[in-house]
Amino acid sequence: MGAAAFVLTTCASVSVGQVGMDGSDGMDAVDFQILEQSRSGTQGYDIVEGLTTEVGERLAGTEAEARARDWTVAKFKEIGLENVRVEPFTIPGWERGVETAAIISPFPQEMLLTALGGSVATPAGGITSDIVYFPTFEDLEAAPMGGLDGKIVFISGRMEKAPDGAGYGPANRKRQSGATEAGKRGATAVVIRSVGTDSHRFPHTGQMRYADDVAPIPIAALSAPDADQLERILERGETVRMALNIQPRATGDMPSGNVIGEIVGSERPEEIVLIGAHLDSWDLGTGAIDDGAGVGITAGAAQILIEQGLRPKRTIRVVAFGAEEVGLLGGFAYRDRHADDLDKHVLATESDFGAEPPYEVLLGVTEGDAVIREVAAALNLPIGTRGTNGGPDIGPMARRGVPTMRFQQDGTDYFDLHHTPDDTLDKIDPDDIAENVAAFALMAWRAANAETDFRADTPDTDK
Amino acid sequence: MGAAAFVLTTCASVSVGQVGMDGSDGMDAVDFQILEQSRSGTQGYDIVEGLTTEVGERLAGTEAEARARDWTVAKFKEIGLENVRVEPFTIPGWERGVETAAIISPFPQEMLLTALGGSVATPAGGITSDIVYFPTFEDLEAAPMGGLDGKIVFISGRMEKAPDGAGYGPANRKRQSGATEAGKRGATAVVIRSVGTDSHRFPHTGQMRYADDVAPIPIAALSAPDADQLERILERGETVRMALNIQPRATGDMPSGNVIGEIVGSERPEEIVLIGAHLDSWDLGTGAIDDGAGVGITAGAAQILIEQGLRPKRTIRVVAFGAEEVGLLGGFAYRDRHADDLDKHVLATESDFGAEPPYEVLLGVTEGDAVIREVAAALNLPIGTRGTNGGPDIGPMARRGVPTMRFQQDGTDYFDLHHTPDDTLDKIDPDDIAENVAAFALMAWRAANAETDFRADTPDTDK
Repeated sequence: MGAAAFVLTTCASVSVGQVGMDGSDGMDAVDFQILEQSRSGTQGYDIVEGLTTEVGERLAGTEAEARARDWTVAKFKEIGLENVRVEPFTIPGWERGVETAAIISPFPQEMLLTALGGSVATPAGGITSDIVYFPTFEDLEAAPMGGLDGKIVFISGRMEKAPDGAGYGPANRKRQSGATEAGKRGATAVVIRSVGTDSHRFPHTGQMRYADDVAPIPIAALSAPDADQLERILERGETVRMALNIQPRATGDMPSGNVIGEIVGSERPEEIVLIGAHLDSWDLGTGAIDDGAGVGITAGAAQILIEQGLRPKRTIRVVAFGAEEVGLLGGFAYRDRHADDLDKHVLATESDFGAEPPYEVLLGVTEGDAVIREVAAALNLPIGTRGTNGGPDIGPMARRGVPTMRFQQDGTDYFDLHHTPDDTLDKIDPDDIAENVAAFALMAWRAANAETDFRADTPDTDK
Repeated sequence: MGAAAFVLTTCASVSVGQVGMDGSDGMDAVDFQILEQSRSGTQGYDIVEGLTTEVGERLAGTEAEARARDWTVAKFKEIGLENVRVEPFTIPGWERGVETAAIISPFPQEMLLTALGGSVATPAGGITSDIVYFPTFEDLEAAPMGGLDGKIVFISGRMEKAPDGAGYGPANRKRQSGATEAGKRGATAVVIRSVGTDSHRFPHTGQMRYADDVAPIPIAALSAPDADQLERILERGETVRMALNIQPRATGDMPSGNVIGEIVGSERPEEIVLIGAHLDSWDLGTGAIDDGAGVGITAGAAQILIEQGLRPKRTIRVVAFGAEEVGLLGGFAYRDRHADDLDKHVLATESDFGAEPPYEVLLGVTEGDAVIREVAAALNLPIGTRGTNGGPDIGPMARRGVPTMRFQQDGTDYFDLHHTPDDTLDKIDPDDIAENVAAFALMAWRAANAETDFRADTPDTDK
């Protein structure tokens, strides 16, 4: 699939043009112009370049996220979006602090790790305890209650690579529930092998959750090489003692917000085609692939239409969601604020899987998908067999009946960088992001001009 | 050359066997046995696995390097080396401390960097100053004296990839002399783009030097993505202010040492064939490719001979040099301690370029190189056109006339990892390191059994 996507990127303007000459796919001159301008342009790349350079990391609820909102408001206005505004909401803040770890015995050495988002701190100065090893999260789940009193639990387990990121869900269970399952059994802290597919010395952060009825214990992620090292040390068969000190802190109610801009529809302006991405990032990198790329792709797609002087019949709304990483809070805030007009959202989709080209189109509609299929054909993309909820921030509104679709990007290497310090601009290929801009621009344009009511018979696609 | 080396690795035992059947290359059954046992064995890999797992990082002069010496003494005895001993010496100690940096304006954000080895600290709490940008070290050299008063100098410049690491010397000038050249002109501190070929968010450390007649100023290296980011920020044209705080410290006289073990020769035990590597590493990673691999390759080669019950006519001496990273101090200590018997060293070579397979053989002898050429032919390796000083720790004795040779390994990707936290065991391919063991075992065996006096007419190969 990666190879097919690559061919598409390098040959697309020729092959699509040839298809168009046949007149077989419903494409007209404006459609071709949108693809051509997107592919030859740098609109998406320029936006992610600006956001990651001029703001950098933008952790939800922090002053950096607030600067990112200001930056995005200015950028949306600069590219010609209308009704530019912030819809504010409040989130529980969390910030990282000191984080160190070391093997104390039998082989003294430092280990590189990072606190998971939402984790409580160790006592000041840290803790020192013996490691109890679970090769997988399932092994921990199968362990008897009790028996881990005062121990530091180490949960390993590797994530499989896949174009659609299918390994993420299974690998992520230890991140989301490791502290709860270890805490239930009496553990004092948890370290996990990072949820990721690389072998670089970057720990991967990401949000964790505590169950209401279990006392919270600290949880942090080791880089893959550090997890390998700890496994080798454990294989020697001696008791392994670790010193662990993480000092993240909850910062109370903090501001976040969704930044919105529109191309107002000429005939049915109250009907919304929503294209979105999330503006916040984790604090370790500059959030280039997660999700500055999505902000660039969606705002860049709108910019293409504006620059071509194209005004659709329905309104195209670009949303840069806040606070996605810490629990899809911008997606929920949008759904709640727009509860009364969700029925006017005719289609919604999010870009949040890096900047590699799409290799298939997923449908979250059951009626009137002809337009989406035409766009997929014009992009030389097959229709995938799975459904979609449109993306993480779209999920909450999808569960209230908003029709969705998604361009499935090639995410084979996405989890090499995801939630690490290494998520930086140099990882984005300008040609690849331009191909995504082309896809979003054409889809938004065609959906906003269609007569289709994508809503009819839309199933509950929550996943 | 990488492709040729790869073919060698996968096909070598067959093709060499076939050559041997022709009897055309002077190889005998013992030679083939050495190659076969090396290639099918894990001796080298097991040694670097043990060293990096059970000791980890081992910065020169620290307690960790002392533990590495103890570990190596035990390992040398375990594999059957004779006359195992440490030749101690004293070095000026240096240790890393806090190191943080941030852009203060116009776009506030943290930057990842690390102090260069030997650097002085900033004043406690750090300094804040404007950045003055030099695209290359040569641009700084060309700048007028004065004019940088109180500024933080940023020296960029990219290193080119090459199989033989030819880009390292030119790129390294800013690391070694950046503080001197900036200090001469009044600067208060220096940050450089890391000397490396990757685009990961790892700064590369490495030793720097101060000139005697210039007041020392602190110097640190930014990761490549951070240097890119700083360049993009500078391109915006506004004054860029940086806060920089590095707190390394000189720790006074500290112990180091060279660990030595031998296979004593049966006929001319006083004549030495020396195969060596360096035992110390930088403190950021676990020193797997630099130079745990070399310790594994050379000690593993001796282990192969011992396990086969092979005793050479001359003595094969394995040396694990201390304190290489901080100025080749083990190499100089060895030269000085052995000043009176350097004339008994008939050939010396070092492995210090990772674990990728060799692609050519370099000569530092002018007489009696027939044995070396035979070994190269048996390994299917061409003779390179350049000379060699045998490796960093061999250089000092080479300048006193000790004949040398070197297996030039493929170092195309070596500087992706060199001197970073990412120099860890997972980067070593067991088959590749086994091929290096084969090369060293056969060379040591053949040179130690030869009648050749490699010394005759040995030129001054210092480079």
